[in-house]
Amino acid sequence: MSTHDIVSAKHEANATLPHVVIIGAGFGGLQAAKALRNVPVRVTVIDRTNYHLFQPLLYQVATAALSPADICSPIRHILKWQENTRVIMAEVTDIDTQQQRVYMHERSIDYDYLIVATGARENYFGHTAWQALAPGLKTIEDATAIRRSILLAFELAEQETDPQRIRELLTFIVVGAGPTGVELAGAIAEVAHHALKSEFRHIDPSMARILLVELGPRILPSFPESLAQRASKELTHLGVEVRTNAPVSDIDEDGVVILEDHIAAKTVLWTAGVLASPAGQWLGAEVDRAGRVEVEQNLSLPNVPNVFVIGDTARVMQNDKPLPGVAPVAMQQGRHVASVIAHHIAGKQHQPFHYLDKGSLATVGRAYAIVDLGKLRMAGFIAWLLWLAVHIVYLIDFRNRVLVMLQWAWAYFTWQRGARLITYADQETMRQEATQRKAEKPVA
Amino acid sequence: MSTHDIVSAKHEANATLPHVVIIGAGFGGLQAAKALRNVPVRVTVIDRTNYHLFQPLLYQVATAALSPADICSPIRHILKWQENTRVIMAEVTDIDTQQQRVYMHERSIDYDYLIVATGARENYFGHTAWQALAPGLKTIEDATAIRRSILLAFELAEQETDPQRIRELLTFIVVGAGPTGVELAGAIAEVAHHALKSEFRHIDPSMARILLVELGPRILPSFPESLAQRASKELTHLGVEVRTNAPVSDIDEDGVVILEDHIAAKTVLWTAGVLASPAGQWLGAEVDRAGRVEVEQNLSLPNVPNVFVIGDTARVMQNDKPLPGVAPVAMQQGRHVASVIAHHIAGKQHQPFHYLDKGSLATVGRAYAIVDLGKLRMAGFIAWLLWLAVHIVYLIDFRNRVLVMLQWAWAYFTWQRGARLITYADQETMRQEATQRKAEKPVA
Repeated sequence: MSTHDIVSAKHEANATLPHVVIIGAGFGGLQAAKALRNVPVRVTVIDRTNYHLFQPLLYQVATAALSPADICSPIRHILKWQENTRVIMAEVTDIDTQQQRVYMHERSIDYDYLIVATGARENYFGHTAWQALAPGLKTIEDATAIRRSILLAFELAEQETDPQRIRELLTFIVVGAGPTGVELAGAIAEVAHHALKSEFRHIDPSMARILLVELGPRILPSFPESLAQRASKELTHLGVEVRTNAPVSDIDEDGVVILEDHIAAKTVLWTAGVLASPAGQWLGAEVDRAGRVEVEQNLSLPNVPNVFVIGDTARVMQNDKPLPGVAPVAMQQGRHVASVIAHHIAGKQHQPFHYLDKGSLATVGRAYAIVDLGKLRMAGFIAWLLWLAVHIVYLIDFRNRVLVMLQWAWAYFTWQRGARLITYADQETMRQEATQRKAEKPVA
Repeated sequence: MSTHDIVSAKHEANATLPHVVIIGAGFGGLQAAKALRNVPVRVTVIDRTNYHLFQPLLYQVATAALSPADICSPIRHILKWQENTRVIMAEVTDIDTQQQRVYMHERSIDYDYLIVATGARENYFGHTAWQALAPGLKTIEDATAIRRSILLAFELAEQETDPQRIRELLTFIVVGAGPTGVELAGAIAEVAHHALKSEFRHIDPSMARILLVELGPRILPSFPESLAQRASKELTHLGVEVRTNAPVSDIDEDGVVILEDHIAAKTVLWTAGVLASPAGQWLGAEVDRAGRVEVEQNLSLPNVPNVFVIGDTARVMQNDKPLPGVAPVAMQQGRHVASVIAHHIAGKQHQPFHYLDKGSLATVGRAYAIVDLGKLRMAGFIAWLLWLAVHIVYLIDFRNRVLVMLQWAWAYFTWQRGARLITYADQETMRQEATQRKAEKPVA
């Protein structure tokens, strides 16, 4: 067979159409790509992974309830039947808005329109050393690393003879009480107090201590105070110690310092704030303190009308407040930008972007959620059913929905967690950890 | 709360009972532990991972059909209700049969009876450099690494402009045509020719070349020749090139040399032989060329009656042939050794081990298997249904069975693979790979 057959010439056919490049296939980028399906353009989606990640359920991978593949769909599978669109797995390193070119490692690509939807990372507010000590939860790798450290803490405690060291290993601190922090702390409590019950012989996992630490005066600042109070009560009921007005002044290998009080803990997790992707630097644009790019009302870059920034990377004001970094904002912005481009190509006018807030939800451990729909506010089991329904509907592909539902049903009725794997990048890592263990006495 | 509460004293109560230590919680070790449930002993199971791995389905993780958690069950979860048993996650480094002690990193444990069930790794027959170039498939980490390299090959080919380089990226060579090699080659063909269909714009994944290379005169040497012939035909039908009498004389970064013919390939996988775990060295025992320990008829070490070696680490002759390294052998040996120990404690005699061969099965791609039950031999769809039933029954816990069945049903009817994730240990790896790519022209 000739080496020529292997290359198909389908895509090159439309080379005369305007080229829209979308960087990032998160909620915003993917919606933009989908909305461009019937617009007379060529679309290229660039992402550094090959999958779309359903970030709101990442905490369930981190706490062994779901597997990575349950919340990831291959981007090219989602866009498979969209013939004007191709997908490239690559990491973007720079953008030249003069040349209208996007740079990746050892290659570049030209655009007519550019949509930047590159998301955000944790914000350590200048404490770069804390990143290694208190990992955040933004990627699949973050989630499996956290899963590993939580499960490993129990395994190491089981082999430990020093009660003080056991206490350290079984203390889990979550810094930052936004929705992710609340969900993570609640899920860790569920693992410790229920899923691992009767499985250890030396330690009692239900004695594990889970702290949720918040700088501000209350948890869930983006929710109404009445709902936050109910969530706080439910967390306490689950066995989470909620500490508000508690600034973290230091993090070291042995734990966390809160108000001059050192709390010894082997596992510290960081969900205390986000920092936008470096797209602002690539674009040479104005950014706010969180690295978000200031954009026009139609989400384009000031004075660069063919470049748009959306999602967690953009700073968009509405009612004198910046829009929150949540999936619905990014999705609506993605669709809006696609329509701006379609209108522009058709020579028509377009409307400025306006976010329609349909409400917010957060889960608090097992079968309890809070829902804020503006006028309607709910907390408890019915709210949790609503949370369930919304997340199942938005999970991208059919298979994932069924799988996730099945695993949730299983987890609900058995109290178990299905993905309790401690995997290793290599055996060396394990050996190093074994060396770090302090006990030297034989266990028998 | 006092630091004392966190430690329970349950296990220490039986300290006067004989102590059975089991190294390895594969098929053999786990069966031995389960069979000791009602024997008056204390049992300690040591494994370097926290899960029991259902190795026969590892090729399905490597080819993105299943997630790691689908074929792994936490060991302590399986043995949760077995009160005389504790589980330790640690790596064994040595055994002292005089002192009756097992060494791990920085700790050790004493035994009265020892069961060594530490399995096997790939055998590169002295070519240690090939290990990095042609990885094997024995662990979850192996499987996710192979999944990654297969999926990444298609991603890189999509961005490549040089047809010769595309051809290299889309050539997959599996060395060794035992059951694992056959299953892996068939599954890769299914991924390339069906699952990825319509998802690429530049390359045609169905033009991928999959070679199954075997040193011997035919594939599946452990099966009757008639069944191997039918399997070979089915592989050809799936688009796998089967090459027998084909010794691999070299492997380098660009491909494989077979009979002085260099075949350029980015992905080379090794399933050509196994080498037992280093347990033979720890024990200072006689081993065969494959590193397997020579044992007595009751599976104990010669002159060391309280140490037993089972599964892939043991060499057991029956009808003048060594028993094969398959799960049923290990499971029957595990149960046998447990009964030898029980008999010994009760002061009774025991029978020598005899393997009861219930038959062999292997799948060949989609909905086709071969079954050898001695008198009954089958190949095709009915054989595949039998393969399906046997694997579902033996999958350890209830949840995994349901999940795997559901995913297989989905895969069967949609031709899709559900776990198509390219994950990274870190972004650095990706950057290095990007640098290795040869094309420097812009793709647009």
